[in-house]
Amino acid sequence: MTAGTDVDPAYAFTPATLPYGVAPSPRFDGPRVMTRLGGRAIDLAALADGGALPAGPWRAATLNPFLESGPEQWRAVRAALQAVLTDETLETAVDAAAYRIDEVTMLLPVAVGDYVDFYASEHHASNVGRLLRPGQPPLLPNWHHLPVGYHGRSGTVVVSGTPVCRPRGQLGPDLFGPTQRLDVEVEVGFVVGSASALGEPVALDDFADHVFGLVLVNDWSARDIQAWEYQPLGPFLGKSFATSISPWVVPLDALAGSRRPAGSCSAELLPYLRERESEPWGLDLSLSLTINGEVLTRPPFASMFWSPAQMLAHLTVNGASVRAGDLFASGTVSGPGADEVGSLLELHRGETFLDDGDEVVISGWARGADGTAISIGDVRGVVLPND
Amino acid sequence: MTAGTDVDPAYAFTPATLPYGVAPSPRFDGPRVMTRLGGRAIDLAALADGGALPAGPWRAATLNPFLESGPEQWRAVRAALQAVLTDETLETAVDAAAYRIDEVTMLLPVAVGDYVDFYASEHHASNVGRLLRPGQPPLLPNWHHLPVGYHGRSGTVVVSGTPVCRPRGQLGPDLFGPTQRLDVEVEVGFVVGSASALGEPVALDDFADHVFGLVLVNDWSARDIQAWEYQPLGPFLGKSFATSISPWVVPLDALAGSRRPAGSCSAELLPYLRERESEPWGLDLSLSLTINGEVLTRPPFASMFWSPAQMLAHLTVNGASVRAGDLFASGTVSGPGADEVGSLLELHRGETFLDDGDEVVISGWARGADGTAISIGDVRGVVLPND
Repeated sequence: MTAGTDVDPAYAFTPATLPYGVAPSPRFDGPRVMTRLGGRAIDLAALADGGALPAGPWRAATLNPFLESGPEQWRAVRAALQAVLTDETLETAVDAAAYRIDEVTMLLPVAVGDYVDFYASEHHASNVGRLLRPGQPPLLPNWHHLPVGYHGRSGTVVVSGTPVCRPRGQLGPDLFGPTQRLDVEVEVGFVVGSASALGEPVALDDFADHVFGLVLVNDWSARDIQAWEYQPLGPFLGKSFATSISPWVVPLDALAGSRRPAGSCSAELLPYLRERESEPWGLDLSLSLTINGEVLTRPPFASMFWSPAQMLAHLTVNGASVRAGDLFASGTVSGPGADEVGSLLELHRGETFLDDGDEVVISGWARGADGTAISIGDVRGVVLPND
Repeated sequence: MTAGTDVDPAYAFTPATLPYGVAPSPRFDGPRVMTRLGGRAIDLAALADGGALPAGPWRAATLNPFLESGPEQWRAVRAALQAVLTDETLETAVDAAAYRIDEVTMLLPVAVGDYVDFYASEHHASNVGRLLRPGQPPLLPNWHHLPVGYHGRSGTVVVSGTPVCRPRGQLGPDLFGPTQRLDVEVEVGFVVGSASALGEPVALDDFADHVFGLVLVNDWSARDIQAWEYQPLGPFLGKSFATSISPWVVPLDALAGSRRPAGSCSAELLPYLRERESEPWGLDLSLSLTINGEVLTRPPFASMFWSPAQMLAHLTVNGASVRAGDLFASGTVSGPGADEVGSLLELHRGETFLDDGDEVVISGWARGADGTAISIGDVRGVVLPND
């Protein structure tokens, strides 16, 4: 997998990935649903107009109508796209629906309903616990019993490429100004497609009936604002100024080769969190954190303690419902190695953070069916000053 | 004001209130925007069809299109409605657009974007601090410096009358089942109309340019789930199963007679939180909590430490944006008296909570321009068992 992370992800989308995004068409009016193959974005509305793909909600400002169509439809469209894009007799039709990736400006792919952020990496939670509560047990008593999480701000989820203005706020008692401790968090986010009903928990085995796919997430964090505000009700303004996501949503069906058990020891868990070894939703994804062109860390998603299926089962066990466009993220992905952490807080022990002008890129790779690396995209952002 | 709380709020909506709600018309297809006068709901689409009111987004499933139209339009429509509803020559047109309130089933009035819950009552925060951290200072160091808040789940905000199923969850280590400590929280919620831009804080003085009006909120809480899960990232499943709001959104313009300074001492605050005495947004509202027909407490909203304008200024000071339909609530309203608290946790010192079948009603009253009480509606819900 490591080799994969050295290939420019911009050109590594193969027919094994086929993600979905939304962008204004350079040729026609209005936004279109698109898929991605190598360096090209392919307009699904144009494919459908040409008869190569069935009609669908392809003239849309978001993926939400497609997400709402449900898992059978997701699979049918993916199969149809794979057939179209590998059929040499359709090459002319595909060319007519394709744009060079530098011709299109990707939009936020989904209208985000609720955004939840978990805290599912044991290495990350332990690292943070040691920094914030030295001399005490790094993990709180609940950590191994449930996926700890909280709600973030959905209205400030922005698409990759959106500049992030350094937030101002209370940095401590009577201390106000631009944050001095602006950080990144390397995360993976899961996009809900099919809604659940209020009062009806989503069982572990029903994960793929509700979750459509994943994006990469940069959960920008102002550590000084967060430290002063967060007790007793959790993070608020230290996180709510911006959360960046990658523009291409990768369907779960592209990740079959990456599935493996997550780190949690199922036998010790309450039944609703016990994942079967035979159908695990832990994912072997390789991530990288690059700042100003230098790869700083390579967080391994396979090291997560809680799987996304466990996150969803927990999120809904009290009867809370989910709907198309809901996003839940893993929390910072940190592996055991010093070069595998997903935040600058951990990498630099709280001593160095982002400067104005820094460009942050998080890239990701999954395993294809044959074990080769397939891109799951990237999420980028530049820090703007705020004087 | 106390006298007001003895009048059935169902019939106390006067031309001084004129709230907005949404309901399917009993006579025509589809949902309509309605206002309320006494025991009648008046269909704005029907008024507009009859020429008594200008055309507008009155055939809509939510108030969001009207909220987005902005403060000038809100005021123009309110003035037009007040003129129509007090013009005796239009009585026939109004009668033709009116339904008995028992003929209509109110819908959730807004598509909620982000839902934020504050913790703005000093009495409540102190009461809870004393219960949870006996022997320590009841308030944490940040409490008097900023309005503490967190994001809740917008997808489970439900309209008054929706039954609330007792949530199941982890009640402690390896303990799973229906909550044994189901509580209410009496709150007031503020509905955003006009959006703000990402990166641009909303100043205190711009509060009424962005906030349209208020609703009453019951922030149902499962205290055992909450106690086990909430550290370090705040409340999650203990709150996310349901939040009930009143169906009629009361415009800020109806509350001019209720405005007064909030409890915070502005001189000691950072400038962005310093409210001017001359333009305060603290509100003198009388609330009541009734369970199974018995009035248990009367929380006074005038006792809040932070005003809603301070809440919005804080929420956006880091550049976070708001949009039409965003809801932010005050947190539990508790006054200094034992019969003025807004939760059973405080009323019964953690010893008694809701039983299955209990019906909870929160009612509210503001002051009209002449000092008389005007209804701001009520929010109701019955607890269903979950075996």
